[in-house]
Amino acid sequence: MSAEPCQPHQNASQPPSDPLVSERARKTLDIVEKLVNEQCSPADPVYVVQLGSGAQRWSYPPIMSGLKDTAKSLGLWNMFLAKGHYSQGAGFTNLEYGLMCEQFGRSRTASEATNNAAPDTGNMELLAKYGSEMHKRKWLEPLLRQEIRSCYVTTEPTSACSDATNVQLSMRREGDEYLLNGQKWWISGAGDPRCKVYIVLGKTDPNHPDKYKRQSILIVPADTPGLEVKRMRSVYGYDDAPHGHAHLIFKDVRVPAENIVLGEGRRFEVMQGRMGPGRIHHAMRSIGAAEEALRWLLTRANAEHKKPFGKLLSQQGVILQWIAKSRIEIDAARLIVLNAAAAIDAGDAKSALVEIAQAKILVPTMALEVIDRAVQTFGAQDICQDTPLAQMWAHVRTVRIADGPDEAHLEQLGKRENRRAGEAAALLERQMEETERLFKKYGTEEVGPMSRL
Amino acid sequence: MSAEPCQPHQNASQPPSDPLVSERARKTLDIVEKLVNEQCSPADPVYVVQLGSGAQRWSYPPIMSGLKDTAKSLGLWNMFLAKGHYSQGAGFTNLEYGLMCEQFGRSRTASEATNNAAPDTGNMELLAKYGSEMHKRKWLEPLLRQEIRSCYVTTEPTSACSDATNVQLSMRREGDEYLLNGQKWWISGAGDPRCKVYIVLGKTDPNHPDKYKRQSILIVPADTPGLEVKRMRSVYGYDDAPHGHAHLIFKDVRVPAENIVLGEGRRFEVMQGRMGPGRIHHAMRSIGAAEEALRWLLTRANAEHKKPFGKLLSQQGVILQWIAKSRIEIDAARLIVLNAAAAIDAGDAKSALVEIAQAKILVPTMALEVIDRAVQTFGAQDICQDTPLAQMWAHVRTVRIADGPDEAHLEQLGKRENRRAGEAAALLERQMEETERLFKKYGTEEVGPMSRL
Amino acid sequence: MSAEPCQPHQNASQPPSDPLVSERARKTLDIVEKLVNEQCSPADPVYVVQLGSGAQRWSYPPIMSGLKDTAKSLGLWNMFLAKGHYSQGAGFTNLEYGLMCEQFGRSRTASEATNNAAPDTGNMELLAKYGSEMHKRKWLEPLLRQEIRSCYVTTEPTSACSDATNVQLSMRREGDEYLLNGQKWWISGAGDPRCKVYIVLGKTDPNHPDKYKRQSILIVPADTPGLEVKRMRSVYGYDDAPHGHAHLIFKDVRVPAENIVLGEGRRFEVMQGRMGPGRIHHAMRSIGAAEEALRWLLTRANAEHKKPFGKLLSQQGVILQWIAKSRIEIDAARLIVLNAAAAIDAGDAKSALVEIAQAKILVPTMALEVIDRAVQTFGAQDICQDTPLAQMWAHVRTVRIADGPDEAHLEQLGKRENRRAGEAAALLERQMEETERLFKKYGTEEVGPMSRL
Amino acid sequence: MSAEPCQPHQNASQPPSDPLVSERARKTLDIVEKLVNEQCSPADPVYVVQLGSGAQRWSYPPIMSGLKDTAKSLGLWNMFLAKGHYSQGAGFTNLEYGLMCEQFGRSRTASEATNNAAPDTGNMELLAKYGSEMHKRKWLEPLLRQEIRSCYVTTEPTSACSDATNVQLSMRREGDEYLLNGQKWWISGAGDPRCKVYIVLGKTDPNHPDKYKRQSILIVPADTPGLEVKRMRSVYGYDDAPHGHAHLIFKDVRVPAENIVLGEGRRFEVMQGRMGPGRIHHAMRSIGAAEEALRWLLTRANAEHKKPFGKLLSQQGVILQWIAKSRIEIDAARLIVLNAAAAIDAGDAKSALVEIAQAKILVPTMALEVIDRAVQTFGAQDICQDTPLAQMWAHVRTVRIADGPDEAHLEQLGKRENRRAGEAAALLERQMEETERLFKKYGTEEVGPMSRL
Repeated sequence: MSAEPCQPHQNASQPPSDPLVSERARKTLDIVEKLVNEQCSPADPVYVVQLGSGAQRWSYPPIMSGLKDTAKSLGLWNMFLAKGHYSQGAGFTNLEYGLMCEQFGRSRTASEATNNAAPDTGNMELLAKYGSEMHKRKWLEPLLRQEIRSCYVTTEPTSACSDATNVQLSMRREGDEYLLNGQKWWISGAGDPRCKVYIVLGKTDPNHPDKYKRQSILIVPADTPGLEVKRMRSVYGYDDAPHGHAHLIFKDVRVPAENIVLGEGRRFEVMQGRMGPGRIHHAMRSIGAAEEALRWLLTRANAEHKKPFGKLLSQQGVILQWIAKSRIEIDAARLIVLNAAAAIDAGDAKSALVEIAQAKILVPTMALEVIDRAVQTFGAQDICQDTPLAQMWAHVRTVRIADGPDEAHLEQLGKRENRRAGEAAALLERQMEETERLFKKYGTEEVGPMSRL
Repeated sequence: MSAEPCQPHQNASQPPSDPLVSERARKTLDIVEKLVNEQCSPADPVYVVQLGSGAQRWSYPPIMSGLKDTAKSLGLWNMFLAKGHYSQGAGFTNLEYGLMCEQFGRSRTASEATNNAAPDTGNMELLAKYGSEMHKRKWLEPLLRQEIRSCYVTTEPTSACSDATNVQLSMRREGDEYLLNGQKWWISGAGDPRCKVYIVLGKTDPNHPDKYKRQSILIVPADTPGLEVKRMRSVYGYDDAPHGHAHLIFKDVRVPAENIVLGEGRRFEVMQGRMGPGRIHHAMRSIGAAEEALRWLLTRANAEHKKPFGKLLSQQGVILQWIAKSRIEIDAARLIVLNAAAAIDAGDAKSALVEIAQAKILVPTMALEVIDRAVQTFGAQDICQDTPLAQMWAHVRTVRIADGPDEAHLEQLGKRENRRAGEAAALLERQMEETERLFKKYGTEEVGPMSRL
Repeated sequence: MSAEPCQPHQNASQPPSDPLVSERARKTLDIVEKLVNEQCSPADPVYVVQLGSGAQRWSYPPIMSGLKDTAKSLGLWNMFLAKGHYSQGAGFTNLEYGLMCEQFGRSRTASEATNNAAPDTGNMELLAKYGSEMHKRKWLEPLLRQEIRSCYVTTEPTSACSDATNVQLSMRREGDEYLLNGQKWWISGAGDPRCKVYIVLGKTDPNHPDKYKRQSILIVPADTPGLEVKRMRSVYGYDDAPHGHAHLIFKDVRVPAENIVLGEGRRFEVMQGRMGPGRIHHAMRSIGAAEEALRWLLTRANAEHKKPFGKLLSQQGVILQWIAKSRIEIDAARLIVLNAAAAIDAGDAKSALVEIAQAKILVPTMALEVIDRAVQTFGAQDICQDTPLAQMWAHVRTVRIADGPDEAHLEQLGKRENRRAGEAAALLERQMEETERLFKKYGTEEVGPMSRL
Repeated sequence: MSAEPCQPHQNASQPPSDPLVSERARKTLDIVEKLVNEQCSPADPVYVVQLGSGAQRWSYPPIMSGLKDTAKSLGLWNMFLAKGHYSQGAGFTNLEYGLMCEQFGRSRTASEATNNAAPDTGNMELLAKYGSEMHKRKWLEPLLRQEIRSCYVTTEPTSACSDATNVQLSMRREGDEYLLNGQKWWISGAGDPRCKVYIVLGKTDPNHPDKYKRQSILIVPADTPGLEVKRMRSVYGYDDAPHGHAHLIFKDVRVPAENIVLGEGRRFEVMQGRMGPGRIHHAMRSIGAAEEALRWLLTRANAEHKKPFGKLLSQQGVILQWIAKSRIEIDAARLIVLNAAAAIDAGDAKSALVEIAQAKILVPTMALEVIDRAVQTFGAQDICQDTPLAQMWAHVRTVRIADGPDEAHLEQLGKRENRRAGEAAALLERQMEETERLFKKYGTEEVGPMSRL
């Protein structure tokens, strides 16, 4: 019953994914980490100050241009389009790109600086995979160059969106056009003055007997008449400018029929391809946020100039246990995400649905816990603008709701696992029969313990 | 904000360890799973009934012989001695053998039936690695054939054993012998009539200036005069017969000096090699127990004949969420353990201390939670002898204490991670300097948010 | 942001119930505490040893007689029958008696030594309130003198008992008799050789249109032909002898019709009176167990002779936080139970259903957590027979299942609280209308934040 | 093992404090609840919109005047000064006023509208109890009329404030004046244009051998030269205008010596009186916030127009369990706070330190959990400005840090409880001796279970 002393060690969190990471990706990862550490993270506070206050906030902070130039000069651009799935991409696997996302997640500016920022990434994947030539020329290409930005328009104020079949926005075909009416909200990115295109989900055939064939996806240019940003919404007090989260009104918005993606009623077909990898990338960013929070925690817990009761925080009470638990929880979560990424790479997003769901559910709760420990360690300094932690927390908190609340995903995962019940019961049944046979063979009493349910 | 419907999928918990599992191990794993499902698990209740009550319990249930014959005929024997570390073993890596341990952990009889049962496995590893030729001939060889069994004798009633330096048993050199005096308890396996040898830790040089050189390891035959089993101890009401947990008295016990392992004062040297892989194997058995508990939970939650309020339990309240959470938590824990096993395989136990500690800490708490959910789902049936769940719980509960309490391991892991604080603080410092430079460059106010700790 | 130093203080856990405790009860409480501390707790280990092993266990340990004599001589006998509800009782309120139960819960022998042990207490309440004169003479009176003991027979192996309407045992009227057929299990107390009477729940009218009128309660003497104890069941390895938990077979058991309680179909009517106070008393015993566990924890955490790493456990890591949290959680749970007891005293069990449910749900989870912290602090010593903690844990664990699993009670409590939704929604609606009026009045934009759901 | 069906009931959360609430307080409570429901809560969104954006935010929203007039006309003004302690107050006990605070906590405007808002309340208590006649005339009287407002100035950016002895602000006596130099931050209320006076903590005698006599309290008018608001700090993105949280610079600030409270070196003496009741009032406000969150949760969970998968949220998965748990947790926390309030009323804040600490620690964690459940139930709508929930969460989150982090309070409470260890160990020792005596008396083996630690 003793804990043997343990010795120093190189790297606590090296994932077992080594055989799955190519030499080229390993090199790129090093460059990404260096960019984040030396350029993006230091630029974050400047970016925040340049945003300023009031209406000015919805403009474009000058410091970003320099970061983008640097990133491009290092060859870091559009790494998200996964190898084997897209010709336009940098040729990395989901696992490799996932490890890059962990680095991006440590900084506010890194994803955009390398053109790997949501929701553009998912939208570009969608256009690359399902878009027509026209769609690609008009929107995918400028997006790949970040000349324009985009939104993904699904959530509605008037329906329960944890059930994807509830979407209500009306898309009525009228000649060569679709006529759109309805409302959407939490449309992230709509505040950016460069946002020029919306990928919109709505109902083209509200009475189709198959409820998975009622919805379609339309590409709507941001300047289409009838489309109005009603107001911007905040997240725990943050407006997330210039990106922002908009409440949109569609009033008799007319869009050419050729703007439909793949065809009428094919929303769910398209979505299954879109959602998986994006969830992995989001999850890895949250893991990066948790690692960054742990780094801040470690710094504060060992700050010589702030020692309550004469001792470093790391020498007091629960702090070391928080550090150890954070280490374990981050590493376990990362393995779950990399496992899912590897599953996508080995097959596709459909074949990895369980693994993706596990990552989607596990990571944000873990990251919120780790960030909150850092906040609590820091005390007052962490809940304000002096560290990135409070805003990180608010951002990750939305992930437990966005793209379906945790509980909806847990329910689905539970249902899927529950399908194993028949097999489990059958095995127990066979085993009990064999047990009875053995009782007879050995002449012991027939009804012993564990022989009957 | 919607949860897209997810589609069926083959295997929720396939670990990403595939590239690390050889074809031969894969085939052996299939045989192991079949043995457990078809022979060992059905034999478990018979084993329990054959134990009977009273003094008879400390004998050897007849059903085990048949299981052992079957296992040997299938080539399943001594799989624990890891490839590359031991010539005597079956040539599997720690990761491969770990996956077999998961199967063993689902049954009470499987580990012993294949001669992969603790504490013999650790003791055999120790003798194979550090024992003299005489040690090997006299004890390792019969252990490898399971002609005898063994104990690992470290914990003491009179000292706080979470600190390994606290061991007090006196080993005084007198001529060609060592004279042993003291007490030990929680000596698991001492109840088995076949137990013939004890691997004993004690102090040969209590005043050595280096506290890590005060202890030695001696091999003590079970029938040595002066050695007395004072009484057997129970675990949450279970006596764990015939294995058992003994309180031992050493009163002027004399052992030949040649029985020392490696030499005087070398306990910690030996131990560092011994502990790591064993922790992995224990952890994988607990994961097997959790999987088995989930299987029972699924069976109960879908039992047609026990529907409170007219609905299956799986259609009510929190059950599906429990199932989903169990699935995620088991899979995350398994990845952590396999990660540690792979780290041992890539280097050795010393180089994988952090990963091993993570597995040691994470797994039992997870398994207890999953088993307790199964208990709560089953209700009254599960806390008694009708299912293996209550005893499983009691067994896994000891793992949080045995071999050092969780808190001691967390403290060590925390200290190790805390060593990164200097590096973390230095990076933040450099980043803040760069931020100041950027503020000047862009002519914004110098002291902005996030620019100072 | 500073924690002012706090000064010594008399009594951390003095409940705010003082005005509700009479002078007489206060004095009795002091005697009870003295009895438990000085007589019952020291007798517990002797009681355990006198139980011995094998068949002998199902007899009556001699030490109990002395304890009973002492208790009676101190006037401590039958305190459970609540003031104002029963003429036979000692005249204490449920709150006052609850505080005595907390003391009883600290010892294994105290409840029986004062004739306040379940299930006799509930059965006596039932007979006192609903029994005929004959019932009282034949069974209540000897129970009040503890000449005989009794069981409460409800749970069945073949039905989901979290739904009380599921009871299946058949009670068919045949002339002057009822004919009973079926099975029951978890019949606690059936092992005691003094157990002479069963209070049995079954279906007299299985097809009654009102499902709450199908069941009745019959008094069945233990020696009635056809009644067989099939086997005793264990709880996490404990047989709980001589009390025990039996699996009973009813095969053509014939009982005089006059043995029916209150009349046919009146099970639920009777039960509503029986369950409430008993839940309070159980809960207070669990609180006593938690206090006792904390006492053991404090003792171990400050043991000079067991200092890992050279420091008392109380000076290390999380231990002080565990102590503080245990203090808070025990005190909060006690207040919840006393609140429920006061509500019963102010009205009756029906009017206090919510408060009783809160106590039923909150207490065992809290107590398990506190006991488990003590176990973890003690390490190996606590999971065996050296301290009362492991058995305490196993006992309290059953409370989360017995008398309906926590989840069923949570579901009911949730439904009840959910009935407030209409009122809550209406208030929000009214408030939003008023907000709109104010927006107009102040000439601000009409649709502001928080003005619309 | 069955959960009997439970019947409707009036009031789930009626505290057992009834005998401690006077008829007059009960009537006032009804008026307070009506004011909050009908006036303050509907005014909250208008208040928020009137705050506007940019510099305008640091002004005084017009709607507050009307609320104040209404409150005064209802006799609701300055209820905080507790009966028996202050002649100026409304004559309510801490328990009675605590129940009013619960109502205030449900609205953003209610505390200020009735002049019961922090930090003025604590400052007024301090001036009423320890202030000179001059202090009272110049500052207490206008504060009681809310003509001016005030700050409490203690936390510093450069010291670890969880240890109150760490305060560094220098207060050097020079003739008839004190010269103040240093920094303070998180000075709440400093943004309000009506804030005219600061209660400042600093070191007058930094080398005093008794570290509890180094600090003093000075009253500093807000317009004293040398005092500068460096910048305002945000809390999870909220600026909390017009109240706000300031970073203050003291540069050669000169204050008349007569502004000292009670005398040099008496900070801790004053503070012990100040902190206790305020913590109770804060805690009750947080309980009000949790109740309000539960009300929103109930409304959303039963919203007919937002039914994912065709069912109300309250009919799905974990929601009912969340509702039930919230009900239990809020009620348990309220009882802990009322218990502390009653203890203060029965003695004073010093005699109730443990009870106050329990409330301080338990309540915010509970409230955050309940609010977060409401947020998760609502989804996207709740994290923005459409409901009060996100801002409530951010506010309550600060309570876990403000006035000492939870961990510091747990550590203190743990130390205090740990003082009982000697008594606990002594009792166990006595009991073991008695057990040995009983073993001898009954002739059983002397060393049985539980007879030795």
